[in-house]
Amino acid sequence: MSQTPRTDGRRADELRPLRLEPGIAPHATGSVLCCFGKTQVICAVTIEKKVPGWMMQQKVAGGWITAEYSLLPYSTHDRKQRDIAKGKLDGRTVEIQRLIGRALRAVTDLSKLPGMTLWIDCDVLQADGGTRTASITGAYVAARLAVHKLMTAGELAENPLVDTVAAISAGIWQDQPILDLDYPEDRDASVDANIVVTGSGRFVELQVAGEESTYDHAQLGQIIALGTLGAGKLAEAQKACLAAHAV
Amino acid sequence: MSQTPRTDGRRADELRPLRLEPGIAPHATGSVLCCFGKTQVICAVTIEKKVPGWMMQQKVAGGWITAEYSLLPYSTHDRKQRDIAKGKLDGRTVEIQRLIGRALRAVTDLSKLPGMTLWIDCDVLQADGGTRTASITGAYVAARLAVHKLMTAGELAENPLVDTVAAISAGIWQDQPILDLDYPEDRDASVDANIVVTGSGRFVELQVAGEESTYDHAQLGQIIALGTLGAGKLAEAQKACLAAHAV
Amino acid sequence: MSQTPRTDGRRADELRPLRLEPGIAPHATGSVLCCFGKTQVICAVTIEKKVPGWMMQQKVAGGWITAEYSLLPYSTHDRKQRDIAKGKLDGRTVEIQRLIGRALRAVTDLSKLPGMTLWIDCDVLQADGGTRTASITGAYVAARLAVHKLMTAGELAENPLVDTVAAISAGIWQDQPILDLDYPEDRDASVDANIVVTGSGRFVELQVAGEESTYDHAQLGQIIALGTLGAGKLAEAQKACLAAHAV
Amino acid sequence: MSQTPRTDGRRADELRPLRLEPGIAPHATGSVLCCFGKTQVICAVTIEKKVPGWMMQQKVAGGWITAEYSLLPYSTHDRKQRDIAKGKLDGRTVEIQRLIGRALRAVTDLSKLPGMTLWIDCDVLQADGGTRTASITGAYVAARLAVHKLMTAGELAENPLVDTVAAISAGIWQDQPILDLDYPEDRDASVDANIVVTGSGRFVELQVAGEESTYDHAQLGQIIALGTLGAGKLAEAQKACLAAHAV
Amino acid sequence: MSQTPRTDGRRADELRPLRLEPGIAPHATGSVLCCFGKTQVICAVTIEKKVPGWMMQQKVAGGWITAEYSLLPYSTHDRKQRDIAKGKLDGRTVEIQRLIGRALRAVTDLSKLPGMTLWIDCDVLQADGGTRTASITGAYVAARLAVHKLMTAGELAENPLVDTVAAISAGIWQDQPILDLDYPEDRDASVDANIVVTGSGRFVELQVAGEESTYDHAQLGQIIALGTLGAGKLAEAQKACLAAHAV
Amino acid sequence: MSQTPRTDGRRADELRPLRLEPGIAPHATGSVLCCFGKTQVICAVTIEKKVPGWMMQQKVAGGWITAEYSLLPYSTHDRKQRDIAKGKLDGRTVEIQRLIGRALRAVTDLSKLPGMTLWIDCDVLQADGGTRTASITGAYVAARLAVHKLMTAGELAENPLVDTVAAISAGIWQDQPILDLDYPEDRDASVDANIVVTGSGRFVELQVAGEESTYDHAQLGQIIALGTLGAGKLAEAQKACLAAHAV
Repeated sequence: MSQTPRTDGRRADELRPLRLEPGIAPHATGSVLCCFGKTQVICAVTIEKKVPGWMMQQKVAGGWITAEYSLLPYSTHDRKQRDIAKGKLDGRTVEIQRLIGRALRAVTDLSKLPGMTLWIDCDVLQADGGTRTASITGAYVAARLAVHKLMTAGELAENPLVDTVAAISAGIWQDQPILDLDYPEDRDASVDANIVVTGSGRFVELQVAGEESTYDHAQLGQIIALGTLGAGKLAEAQKACLAAHAV
Repeated sequence: MSQTPRTDGRRADELRPLRLEPGIAPHATGSVLCCFGKTQVICAVTIEKKVPGWMMQQKVAGGWITAEYSLLPYSTHDRKQRDIAKGKLDGRTVEIQRLIGRALRAVTDLSKLPGMTLWIDCDVLQADGGTRTASITGAYVAARLAVHKLMTAGELAENPLVDTVAAISAGIWQDQPILDLDYPEDRDASVDANIVVTGSGRFVELQVAGEESTYDHAQLGQIIALGTLGAGKLAEAQKACLAAHAV
Repeated sequence: MSQTPRTDGRRADELRPLRLEPGIAPHATGSVLCCFGKTQVICAVTIEKKVPGWMMQQKVAGGWITAEYSLLPYSTHDRKQRDIAKGKLDGRTVEIQRLIGRALRAVTDLSKLPGMTLWIDCDVLQADGGTRTASITGAYVAARLAVHKLMTAGELAENPLVDTVAAISAGIWQDQPILDLDYPEDRDASVDANIVVTGSGRFVELQVAGEESTYDHAQLGQIIALGTLGAGKLAEAQKACLAAHAV
Repeated sequence: MSQTPRTDGRRADELRPLRLEPGIAPHATGSVLCCFGKTQVICAVTIEKKVPGWMMQQKVAGGWITAEYSLLPYSTHDRKQRDIAKGKLDGRTVEIQRLIGRALRAVTDLSKLPGMTLWIDCDVLQADGGTRTASITGAYVAARLAVHKLMTAGELAENPLVDTVAAISAGIWQDQPILDLDYPEDRDASVDANIVVTGSGRFVELQVAGEESTYDHAQLGQIIALGTLGAGKLAEAQKACLAAHAV
Repeated sequence: MSQTPRTDGRRADELRPLRLEPGIAPHATGSVLCCFGKTQVICAVTIEKKVPGWMMQQKVAGGWITAEYSLLPYSTHDRKQRDIAKGKLDGRTVEIQRLIGRALRAVTDLSKLPGMTLWIDCDVLQADGGTRTASITGAYVAARLAVHKLMTAGELAENPLVDTVAAISAGIWQDQPILDLDYPEDRDASVDANIVVTGSGRFVELQVAGEESTYDHAQLGQIIALGTLGAGKLAEAQKACLAAHAV
Repeated sequence: MSQTPRTDGRRADELRPLRLEPGIAPHATGSVLCCFGKTQVICAVTIEKKVPGWMMQQKVAGGWITAEYSLLPYSTHDRKQRDIAKGKLDGRTVEIQRLIGRALRAVTDLSKLPGMTLWIDCDVLQADGGTRTASITGAYVAARLAVHKLMTAGELAENPLVDTVAAISAGIWQDQPILDLDYPEDRDASVDANIVVTGSGRFVELQVAGEESTYDHAQLGQIIALGTLGAGKLAEAQKACLAAHAV
């Protein structure tokens, strides 16, 4: 059966060009500009030498990782109103920042972050689909750079990151399974999935949502296979980027 | 291999006792008290004869479905502060109400709700794990009852619900896959999944999250199989309840 | 002089059917569903083992009682927007929850609640007039049940409740004084009163408001007489309910 | 039985010195500084040439009266934080401004305020008990002055105020009924009442609250008698003040 | 070259009539009603015996001065909505209260206010241009009165105010430099300046803003000269007022 | 007299290295990364095809320019909490964004922006003093690029920018006047000024504030001279940058 070609001519299982540029935010402990095609996200990690109130109350040892995500107003085709102008975070932002936090915590031994909170900030400079997956993929690199800096400075004894983590989208678009959807594909997809996978190939999170639509077992299998493939390629790129910066 | 028995003695693939009691909120257009074991949720559907602002602006025809979810303060062992007392919805609440709304819209032909918003309110009277899945399962029944009432009253020409929908949790607990986790199981699970399935067996949404943990392909397969099984049983119970009320 | 008959055929001094169903919210320390005719309120009492900040600062001994009140969205004929969706409590809600708190504190020896806050939550499941009076009447029963449970568990040495308390509405409707107004009567009344009385017949609070109208001494006397009568009947029903549950 | 003398030596049925100084806020349509002893309230009435949203939606003819009340930060012995600094109105403020609005509307024929909202602002310059009663008493005078100015300017055809209205406090203090409580008396009273009465001697509102205490029929009668007496004196003073300003 | 006469006939370098009436808010530690022509501001100083959180955290010795500014709703020709009704301070208010605070701190030796916060509240009773300059000018007098009272009471050992401070506006209106603009002049000015000067003739703050317009060096010089002149006259009036009250 | 050398060895009248990199935010209509030494600000201009509510109500013709400013959380040495996390803009942010808006409007003929709002967003990527002056300087370039794009696309008939505008700081530090303060200089300065000047050398705004300190006429003159000099150099750099991009 002949298939509709993708908007930018990619194969169904092809990622967009990936860029990882460390050092975008010099005051952060670790930072990277992570680009999936035209999607550009500033991922920055800063350290706060205290833990959340609930950890202190419950006397939980170790540290914490928390994430914040924001679309900069000029990242979208129509200007996106700032959160503070609306007075609250929208539901989509809340979901994304919770997902980023869980993804990073899943590959971290929190007991090795004594008394610290690792803040992960993801600010989208340009949005063209996949901002949450680019955020997670970049956040890992920024976190690894921050850990390296803290270990070099003697502020951390050991690397708390026990594995790498990356995320990628997949979906059903024009009745075909595709990987790494750009904005027009994402808008028109009937099924939209986000897959978070570790460097060793284990799942951290799988979210597969029918967009006012449903899907069957066969489609689910195709989506999982594509996502696993894509996440593997991202893991290689993360390692190459870090190696190039001697981490 | 011998396994740890479940807290309440259930088999791994066994649901908690299900109760669906229509009519709990007489002023609503449709309502049901949905209980999964000790978890009790008031699900109520009310109708507003207008559509959201963005639909009017974009001149989208048809109607809309939106959901709100709340833990009543006395639903948890320690009193849960009201949302208004904190001044904002917490992230978990936002995620759940977005999930309920998407689940119901996935089985609805919105073009058959002309100029209407169907509000789904899910208020948890007692929380013991699975409040979001009980909410979705009950919300479908409340929505079907509301549609029946509107059709009887001549306010709707056709049934906009094109399928039934139910949701169930599954997870990895004590290294074994189990279905329909109660609160202590949910708290201790290493993987936590929510599966939303239609009466015809298609997926609406699948969310499988490692709880500061990860999982492999085999575990993912087991979770999907359990969830599919559980959702099938819930679909039968929904139909039986509606049939008993002549819907 | 012939009088307009009441909407539901009651005599001027007749209460609506009263129901008090303990145990509606099993996780609460004490709870009751209190119904005045079609008005249904979930009254639940939970315990917090600390006192408000101002008591700690001022080193006031003993405990505190505070109340929250909410109309569930599906309790009214037109869906009532949640407080959190509006971002603040409306004036009516604030007045009612302050009244409930004062009513219960008036019959409580706060020195016998050492270091505790008794939270009274009143959530209206169905609103048909008299929600504040049903809330107070039910709140007393829920509080007494909670106290019983705490004493049985050895967490309270003595009963801090020194009397019972109940509340009832009265008003001038169609130029006649009537007791326990339902919603259509309340909407059309020219004078609207709420009377809070102890089991021993003393007043806790009397609020008699002309609804863009005024009233004379004779009418005030009639309202007070009706309210006193109604509150006496409620006190008997509270005692019977508690006796039936061996409290 | 000998009685404790009042803090300032007044008889039980004696009002504090009353001052009504028109013109305190020259940009307002009508204004007065109303002083009950050391309690000083700026009462100002301004006109907005539109009605609230709900009146427009429900196509209610005529106009509206609404009130806002605030303790200026330096009105109390310890600085009172501004409402905006706390982010919300406290419950006491909400109750008071609702009471002021109802009191004025009870003596107004709203149909004679076509398309207008009369804003009543009461800002307390010095608080020494009775700020709500001084607010209502002054608000009437400010409103009458505003009406006079509007009629003179031809912006109102008729006087919409059908009667005068004033308010006074009474209570049980040291086991004796007293009138017009100052702050120390108010703080120590076991029963606290506010009585709103028209110039023709009809009640607008009666609120009699036990302060973590209760009261009997005899005490209620004494309170009502004192309040009626005091309100009569205030009505005379209002008339004298207006007459002195040729209104 | 002939010039347009000013709206009220003043010379270009003439101040409006100044009034300083101490004691307007008797519960404040120091207060004054400060009038620049029709502009009337209540300036009140109260003392709080603690310092801001950041001073305690950073262990900064001494005390603090902070200011709040508000337009009373009836101070303007069209009623000004209260800040709390809008839910936030507008930008203009924020700028003004920060300016008042900086002005007073510039003439205060904060080390001589041990453990105290001096709250300066400026509430505008009537607004006719120059509310911020009248606020600063009055705030100094209120602060000096408060200091006097505290020293008399033995609560302050030394006068922390090391100089006097006053503020005045100047601007370019109808192409001419003028001093102390009233509201119509302020509205039409092309350049609007506020000048804060100490009694010894040193600048505290200079803000010269083109109102969607620009200005040259010569105009800047004229504005500075006028402002310096006006501030000198205000300093004399402040001293005379205080001397008349034996301070 | 020998003087303390500046932290980075600059002469008193020397600017930090200036960088203007157009195109940082590709979805914006015009954007530039503006760097004053280590201070880096993303300046982006987007267009909204409507005007503010007050312009529509008052039927003001033409368009509007508005600015928003934010410190990204990782721009400062200690992580800066997001505005939305605090729930409101702090006073400093409000002042800065109002200043940016006024600066741009002063060089714009708003009548040549028919029915449009030009949004100027300034997000600080790295903060090292002078973020508001870098914001204004970059905002002009971004606005000019946006205008160029709109004119090329035929969406604007004429260039509404009638002049260029730039801003620079100056101050008194270690008793000497210096230009373009970096963060350590700004923190320690006794006088802090911001000067906004057009390309033709006219002032738009001058703000000279004693930082809990005061200054005399001579110092004011030195500050104005330095600022005028610095702004002239910035104007040349703006023109060169635009010329290099054929604007």
